[in-house]
Amino acid sequence: MSDQPIIRRRVVSHGISDARVNSSKIQSQYQPYKDAAWGFINHWYPALFSDELPEDEVKGIQICGVPIVLRRVNGKIHALKDQCLHRGVRLSEKPMCFNKSTISCWYHGFTYDLESGNLVTIVANPEDKLIGTTGLTTYPVQEAAGMVFVFVREDGFPDADVPPLADDLPFRFPQESERFPHPLWPASPGVLDENAVALGMHRTGFGNWRIACENGFDNAHILVHKDSTIVHAMDWVLPLGLLPTADDGIEVVEDEKGPKGLMQWLFTDKWQPVLENKELGLKVEGAKGRYYRTSVVLPGVLMVENWPGEHMTQYEWYVPITDDTHEYWEVIVRVCDTPEEREKHQYRYDRVYKPLCLHGFNDCDLYAREAMQNFYADGTGWDNEQLVATDVSPITWRKLASRWNRGIAKPGRGVAGSLKDTALRFKDTADGRRPGYEVIRIQED
Amino acid sequence: MSDQPIIRRRVVSHGISDARVNSSKIQSQYQPYKDAAWGFINHWYPALFSDELPEDEVKGIQICGVPIVLRRVNGKIHALKDQCLHRGVRLSEKPMCFNKSTISCWYHGFTYDLESGNLVTIVANPEDKLIGTTGLTTYPVQEAAGMVFVFVREDGFPDADVPPLADDLPFRFPQESERFPHPLWPASPGVLDENAVALGMHRTGFGNWRIACENGFDNAHILVHKDSTIVHAMDWVLPLGLLPTADDGIEVVEDEKGPKGLMQWLFTDKWQPVLENKELGLKVEGAKGRYYRTSVVLPGVLMVENWPGEHMTQYEWYVPITDDTHEYWEVIVRVCDTPEEREKHQYRYDRVYKPLCLHGFNDCDLYAREAMQNFYADGTGWDNEQLVATDVSPITWRKLASRWNRGIAKPGRGVAGSLKDTALRFKDTADGRRPGYEVIRIQED
Amino acid sequence: MSDQPIIRRRVVSHGISDARVNSSKIQSQYQPYKDAAWGFINHWYPALFSDELPEDEVKGIQICGVPIVLRRVNGKIHALKDQCLHRGVRLSEKPMCFNKSTISCWYHGFTYDLESGNLVTIVANPEDKLIGTTGLTTYPVQEAAGMVFVFVREDGFPDADVPPLADDLPFRFPQESERFPHPLWPASPGVLDENAVALGMHRTGFGNWRIACENGFDNAHILVHKDSTIVHAMDWVLPLGLLPTADDGIEVVEDEKGPKGLMQWLFTDKWQPVLENKELGLKVEGAKGRYYRTSVVLPGVLMVENWPGEHMTQYEWYVPITDDTHEYWEVIVRVCDTPEEREKHQYRYDRVYKPLCLHGFNDCDLYAREAMQNFYADGTGWDNEQLVATDVSPITWRKLASRWNRGIAKPGRGVAGSLKDTALRFKDTADGRRPGYEVIRIQED
Repeated sequence: MSDQPIIRRRVVSHGISDARVNSSKIQSQYQPYKDAAWGFINHWYPALFSDELPEDEVKGIQICGVPIVLRRVNGKIHALKDQCLHRGVRLSEKPMCFNKSTISCWYHGFTYDLESGNLVTIVANPEDKLIGTTGLTTYPVQEAAGMVFVFVREDGFPDADVPPLADDLPFRFPQESERFPHPLWPASPGVLDENAVALGMHRTGFGNWRIACENGFDNAHILVHKDSTIVHAMDWVLPLGLLPTADDGIEVVEDEKGPKGLMQWLFTDKWQPVLENKELGLKVEGAKGRYYRTSVVLPGVLMVENWPGEHMTQYEWYVPITDDTHEYWEVIVRVCDTPEEREKHQYRYDRVYKPLCLHGFNDCDLYAREAMQNFYADGTGWDNEQLVATDVSPITWRKLASRWNRGIAKPGRGVAGSLKDTALRFKDTADGRRPGYEVIRIQED
Repeated sequence: MSDQPIIRRRVVSHGISDARVNSSKIQSQYQPYKDAAWGFINHWYPALFSDELPEDEVKGIQICGVPIVLRRVNGKIHALKDQCLHRGVRLSEKPMCFNKSTISCWYHGFTYDLESGNLVTIVANPEDKLIGTTGLTTYPVQEAAGMVFVFVREDGFPDADVPPLADDLPFRFPQESERFPHPLWPASPGVLDENAVALGMHRTGFGNWRIACENGFDNAHILVHKDSTIVHAMDWVLPLGLLPTADDGIEVVEDEKGPKGLMQWLFTDKWQPVLENKELGLKVEGAKGRYYRTSVVLPGVLMVENWPGEHMTQYEWYVPITDDTHEYWEVIVRVCDTPEEREKHQYRYDRVYKPLCLHGFNDCDLYAREAMQNFYADGTGWDNEQLVATDVSPITWRKLASRWNRGIAKPGRGVAGSLKDTALRFKDTADGRRPGYEVIRIQED
Repeated sequence: MSDQPIIRRRVVSHGISDARVNSSKIQSQYQPYKDAAWGFINHWYPALFSDELPEDEVKGIQICGVPIVLRRVNGKIHALKDQCLHRGVRLSEKPMCFNKSTISCWYHGFTYDLESGNLVTIVANPEDKLIGTTGLTTYPVQEAAGMVFVFVREDGFPDADVPPLADDLPFRFPQESERFPHPLWPASPGVLDENAVALGMHRTGFGNWRIACENGFDNAHILVHKDSTIVHAMDWVLPLGLLPTADDGIEVVEDEKGPKGLMQWLFTDKWQPVLENKELGLKVEGAKGRYYRTSVVLPGVLMVENWPGEHMTQYEWYVPITDDTHEYWEVIVRVCDTPEEREKHQYRYDRVYKPLCLHGFNDCDLYAREAMQNFYADGTGWDNEQLVATDVSPITWRKLASRWNRGIAKPGRGVAGSLKDTALRFKDTADGRRPGYEVIRIQED
């Protein structure tokens, strides 16, 4: 492949902008990212909010094409592959647990140890030679700030190599305050902080996770928010976009340990807030600057510091379910040292942040991401997109994600979404059910 | 291909159980079965209940990817390929019959003789040279016990080779009473018995017919029924499963004439009812043994003798519609020699067997079969399933079905379900219509 | 490929009809037509009725797999490719226009000149080098008789080569009255006539456009209308079909300039109205002859002269959206020289023609076309159809369309319908939305 820019559609004259054009050379630098339609595997992902899995509850989800069943026993959550070894049904469709240390398949009674995943008995076949010789893959679980994180791994991935959760979470403060100082706000709270509280929601987005993820930190997309109620209720100044003014506007973090990602020097002299477009007679009005800073780390976690208010951080995940669905997580993290603070945070979340930000403001993002799906789904977008200066952010991300991911998830096999046009899916759709993230229980009389 | 067992997922230690493992050698013995996604053709299948096709009525169905139109005239049912030779529309979508011996295509008037299938005229083209030179394939029809059976054949299959219906129905009694004696019940009634009455229902299952069929006679699946209302209302003892204790627990029937299938020696010393699993502290309670016996014959007909009560037999078919849908038939057969017996059977069917058995009890089977669909639909299941002792039944069935079927149906072409993702199907789905078995009539003002 | 007729299904005896059989030789003469699943490009198509696009309104549609956005400014309609160069979203999903000469992408602010399609600015990146170097393809627009026509072209098609709209509209009268005289009616009105008024409707048909188009002028299909309310209310004599009696029953028009198409000499001695089928004992009754004449021109426009009444012409288009959907247009044209005439025409349209003709009568056509979709969608139909004398019309059309089309549309890429089974489409379907023609706006709070 040559390094020539890909010419497409009607080129009126010459002089195309250079570095940010997706030439075949630049594209080759992020080929692994283009291959990761089903996500990056061997990473930590949020699975549920803690309160979605009360004691003794069982739930099934799917991440990177891997079906996962979670059960909480004595407070501890166990996660196993949610696909019986016998004939492949999901344990979570009709949970059957005869004691606190196992989960059994509701169909033919294959019974697995929650801790090891080992096949410990078969209900009607307690002497079978298969018992003790095989088992289901297990997934490390960690809870933090009211969220359940699961390390989604390939079947052979060794326990010893499981990295700490912090390696797949955004940069932490005040640890990184010297590296990423900001005069306008104190150290941003994170989910691993003591007394951190993560309030938020998750729902399914009907597009590929990468397209969703890139929206979060591309500095021109904020145009979609220009009419948001929260912006005008608060009288915020939201720029038309932020333009890079220097080559070092993005800091790529590739330390041997810790998260791999990028930090953007927004609202410094490296990015110019665009408040006007003379050609169009546009001028941003509003009284109050609303300063924030976005960064993103593998496997695709957005952090928006100082957003949607002081002493808060908004996290987002775009967790791959299949190659055309992702679970969109929006979480506001705040440290609440007292029950009063916690209650106040919850109140304000319920009254302001959930309706006006996570819905009102971010719904625009969700729609925008789905609006790109047709263009990218058949590969057209990767070849034909025409990137510009502000797209330095997604391009930098694509390259670093290509270098540092721990594995490209294989296309799902034998799971929901590996075939998309089965009669079973049409049946569910006729009944009003969209393809989703959580397993729906078998309903019996 | 080698004879090595296929190793999959995390094998904790060695010593995998042997004969019932789906090694590549055993798989090769049932390759034709694996190829039969669209069913076995040149077999008898139930098409409708007799009362679903009253005098002069026309209905369209699809079996093994073959569209079939049925019309009853003077009591006799005729079945033809339901695809006009001209431009392929289904005659049954808008039935048009100008006399008792033909059916005409509602679109351009191609008119076929019901008996021979020959093109006898074209409404607006009565002199066309094509007339008398071609025709639609016809399908032999036979009614028994209130059911309509159709011999679904390939276009070239000769009339002379059509086998008797009895060859594709379960073993008959008392003819086979000596071969398959049972001390606990009298000879089981069958649909071909004099005064037999078959009461039941049929509905579409959203999975492949083979996955559905295997559920019916695998002796560990009864675990799914452990909480069924009928079981507890009747105080039945339903074992956790039935384990084979000897190599001759299944009798394979391959007589030169008559049905090809297998009979299971359940509730004899060749199968041990498992009433307890000590590892899990499980023990079955209940006062009354509910003895039954399952057998299966080509093209996939289950017989459950002495079920759901005395003097009854439950039949089941899993009639392939496409490769991902089947019509699930549940029928209870009883001999009713008087109108009073018939009425009593109907009453008990309506009040007890239909709601509590065919629905309450067997709905669990329907859900269980659909729960396997994702695993098997893309081929994963056939390679990755991990079979155990109780699976000797499906494996025996797969082998015998591979040896004795009369033809593997070709993937449907030019019919509903040959392409699955057409806009037409999405339209119907948006309107709340699931993919189905029967043709829906064109609605006109 | 040989010239042998394709033998299919059960051939009862020999003597198949000759010229109209779809032998491989004849099929090869219309191969381009068989390749045109996504339609013929570089042709004029109706896009909207004029009153569907009021001043300053923006709407998105798709024709031949090409997404098109239309905006009306100062009465004039502009049409551009509805796919932002940047990341491929449709401008019409959330229209954003900052002035009367441009349309901006709502996502990242790429702004295009309505006239030229050139990229004139980017909201937050007004100095980007890309500006002025590229742009979106534009489409010539012309309004006539209350309809908006768009010339749907390939990206490189030169303005200078755009033909007049009249070249893609039916034969005009009285210009062609000498060539196509008819004693029974005066010159038929057309959309380009002075004071012509086109009243009608358009809706999505769920099948390929070719299958739909052929229905319109095949002279045996009128059988589907035999029970129509309008026919019986009016006491019309509608024949069972019309049979060609001579080789010159169809006149192919291939003049160097003007429309390319065919005119059928219906209700002359070249076509015999079939009023009886003795074999079936059928005889058409009714008091009043309802004479009409059908013709069809590229890119697939039907004209029915003298229909559904005197001084009227019914036009139909089957505009390709994708390969399995088309927009079905039914329009009744009448010249109304005074406001009174116009009002009367509208009244009669609302009370009679819309309910009884465009719906009651033509709904049968819509259903009939969808009934062919399964047969043709996977290619089966093109190989297996068995054509007869009356099919001389579609075969003549297929050949001439193969010779005279201005380009075969490439399968859609990066647009709705290029992949059919995306989760996004299943989501919409679960929500009750069928695949459609017009873009649905993003709904925000």
